[in-house]
Amino acid sequence: MNSLLIKGCSILTMVQGDKPFVGDVLIEGGQITRIAESIEQQADSVIDAKGMAAMPGLINAHNHASMSLLRAFSDDLKLMDWLDKKMLPAEARMTKEDIYWGTMLGTAEMISSGTTAFADMYVHMDAVAQAVVDSGMRAALTRGLVFLEDDGGRRMSEALALVENWTGAGDGRITTMLGPHAPYTCPPQPLSEVIELARNRRIPLHIHLAETVEEVEKIRSRYGQSPTEYLHELGLFADNHVLLAHAVHLTRTDVSLLRGMRGGVSHNPVSNLKLGCGIAPVREMIAQGITVGLGTDGAGSATTLDMFAEIKAATWMQKLESGDPTVLPAEQALRMATIESAKLLGIDAQVGTLEVGKRADLILIDLDKPHLQPIHDLHSLIAYSATGADVDTTIVNGQVLMRNRELLSMSWEEVKSEAAIRSARLVEGL
Amino acid sequence: MNSLLIKGCSILTMVQGDKPFVGDVLIEGGQITRIAESIEQQADSVIDAKGMAAMPGLINAHNHASMSLLRAFSDDLKLMDWLDKKMLPAEARMTKEDIYWGTMLGTAEMISSGTTAFADMYVHMDAVAQAVVDSGMRAALTRGLVFLEDDGGRRMSEALALVENWTGAGDGRITTMLGPHAPYTCPPQPLSEVIELARNRRIPLHIHLAETVEEVEKIRSRYGQSPTEYLHELGLFADNHVLLAHAVHLTRTDVSLLRGMRGGVSHNPVSNLKLGCGIAPVREMIAQGITVGLGTDGAGSATTLDMFAEIKAATWMQKLESGDPTVLPAEQALRMATIESAKLLGIDAQVGTLEVGKRADLILIDLDKPHLQPIHDLHSLIAYSATGADVDTTIVNGQVLMRNRELLSMSWEEVKSEAAIRSARLVEGL
Repeated sequence: MNSLLIKGCSILTMVQGDKPFVGDVLIEGGQITRIAESIEQQADSVIDAKGMAAMPGLINAHNHASMSLLRAFSDDLKLMDWLDKKMLPAEARMTKEDIYWGTMLGTAEMISSGTTAFADMYVHMDAVAQAVVDSGMRAALTRGLVFLEDDGGRRMSEALALVENWTGAGDGRITTMLGPHAPYTCPPQPLSEVIELARNRRIPLHIHLAETVEEVEKIRSRYGQSPTEYLHELGLFADNHVLLAHAVHLTRTDVSLLRGMRGGVSHNPVSNLKLGCGIAPVREMIAQGITVGLGTDGAGSATTLDMFAEIKAATWMQKLESGDPTVLPAEQALRMATIESAKLLGIDAQVGTLEVGKRADLILIDLDKPHLQPIHDLHSLIAYSATGADVDTTIVNGQVLMRNRELLSMSWEEVKSEAAIRSARLVEGL
Repeated sequence: MNSLLIKGCSILTMVQGDKPFVGDVLIEGGQITRIAESIEQQADSVIDAKGMAAMPGLINAHNHASMSLLRAFSDDLKLMDWLDKKMLPAEARMTKEDIYWGTMLGTAEMISSGTTAFADMYVHMDAVAQAVVDSGMRAALTRGLVFLEDDGGRRMSEALALVENWTGAGDGRITTMLGPHAPYTCPPQPLSEVIELARNRRIPLHIHLAETVEEVEKIRSRYGQSPTEYLHELGLFADNHVLLAHAVHLTRTDVSLLRGMRGGVSHNPVSNLKLGCGIAPVREMIAQGITVGLGTDGAGSATTLDMFAEIKAATWMQKLESGDPTVLPAEQALRMATIESAKLLGIDAQVGTLEVGKRADLILIDLDKPHLQPIHDLHSLIAYSATGADVDTTIVNGQVLMRNRELLSMSWEEVKSEAAIRSARLVEGL
């Protein structure tokens, strides 16, 4: 049984109430088997982590990883110009191979910025799943389902094939969901069928909700309801585990309809800010007991997949809106990016905190940097001053995917070269 | 005459209208003497900058650098708790030597995150100035003036001694200003005297303005005016070059009073977000022709001095408030952090763009990273995805202060050690 001993780091377990302390972490067979102030035991490999902070790997609860090929291609545009003139034409050119390499680029960025797991909704999910297996990351994968035209059931059968063929792949690192895209792309009849199918087969769901004012207006004019009411009436929140992406424009009634739901909300503050969407009612949702994690959305809109940017943006937006600097403090924001996101992916029993018995998904942050000295409060320091570039080591399922900032599970030169060639073709003439 | 040739980088001059292009930059005697697609000339040193972007060094228009010793010491607190229970008692313990080492820590962070110049207001400014000379940075320094008690003119004479003794020091890298602290700490009589003195001696001014709602209420109850009206009536904007920090709570009338002013506003979005202060009327000020640059404020509140965070936060806040993703686009945000900030410091004839004849203050950003590939639009990529950690090389006045992320003008081990010991003493028991 392969073993790895990490020595002398400041340990942030992200278990509520735990204080950081200096100690060692032992990993055996991909599992955390001991955490203590000092572990004297032989191990196959030892990492001297003095001057570093160990914490659970960050979990990105909403992503479209292969859109990394379209990073910084169409920023500062109106949403509809961005979508119609840039994203949709470029995406229409994407082959399965493009999506594989786009996802590899996304996983390269996530691993190098301390993210160990992500939820993804896209197409050609075989290619995405293969990239997850190859990169060594953990992921909850979903084939996006749009029901605006009759495709003879093609999308739905691809979605079920993903669940059938890939659940548990990569030594259990891959889980799957069903992904009705959004209220405005899913009419009641097919959406009800997906919800029922998911309930009967115990498959979690991943859906966009209330990202823009335009969406709210569209659903209200069609159905006389808010998007949340629309999903509620179709029974989405009755018994399914549901991952809701965005949830920006929710009324008080909407928030109350989510009370007691299984799953919860992926808050994606950078994307919401950059597209001018608005501020999600994060404090209200948390006050109602709804789980709120953090995600980046695709790099096509957010530009970066650095979860440390989301941690900062999440707390800043709540402080701004309330005018109160005490709301959503550093430690809570870090929990949102770890254990709370893990709950959304349904993997909180396996990962999301540093605890004995959990799978070893963790990162080491190098504190030997001007912006991370002196050390008064580690939670504040990491939430408000660290970025993805401070992550020295990324470990998933006990496998070291990055060490001393070198990516070990892929050839960065190959990924970079494939991304450059393919992305140039996708945007040519647009 | 010492010469340095930088070869093969993507050049972002930040001159409005210039498109990025691949080329070489020649620096002789600390000055940019040629920029061209290819320069074939002998030089004392050559930097192969293939795969990097060259741009003007970032200019931090509002800082209290030595407060870096108090980074992450008191986050997530109410402003008055933060000030009275944490900052003021810790600052009261600061010696001149603490301030020297705190400033060295601040310059270490700034150099390592691509900032080449900053405006600073604090006390023991001899120590701050010495740290600027030693670190190799450029700075506009100000002794903060608070007129709440009679100090026999001590602060004022220290302020004038700073101007007398340090203007032009460090091969011209140091400029000086007079720094009446804020409307609420400067009654009309002494403030008028400072304004008149500054006007007569052609010394620029640096002052905090309208950071919080509480300040606006305080000034209104004292003088029946807004803070901006108060300063306007005392003649501050008549003929002085003034650097205004924050300017969050301005009415339309306030903004109109600033029209035509010399100098302008340092917008400090991260600090404003993190303290829940609000969103400054940046679009309105720019529309009225007021220069708006970017600053971090001290690390005691902002936690980090990374100007790339300010660039992102500045554009996000304007997009959020307007609901329009096209406002304050990437290139404009980058100009705010460079040439617009240079105007605030009064050094835009010397630095702030990459142009022949200007002093060589520039940075090289390493694009060979997963989050900076592929390359569609360099301005977007750098504004929305780069962080300070992507800066490979920082050059001020032709001197290389960081190369391959190694600080060359100071011993990082010494700075780190001094910061750790001194900061521990400052916060003991607080």
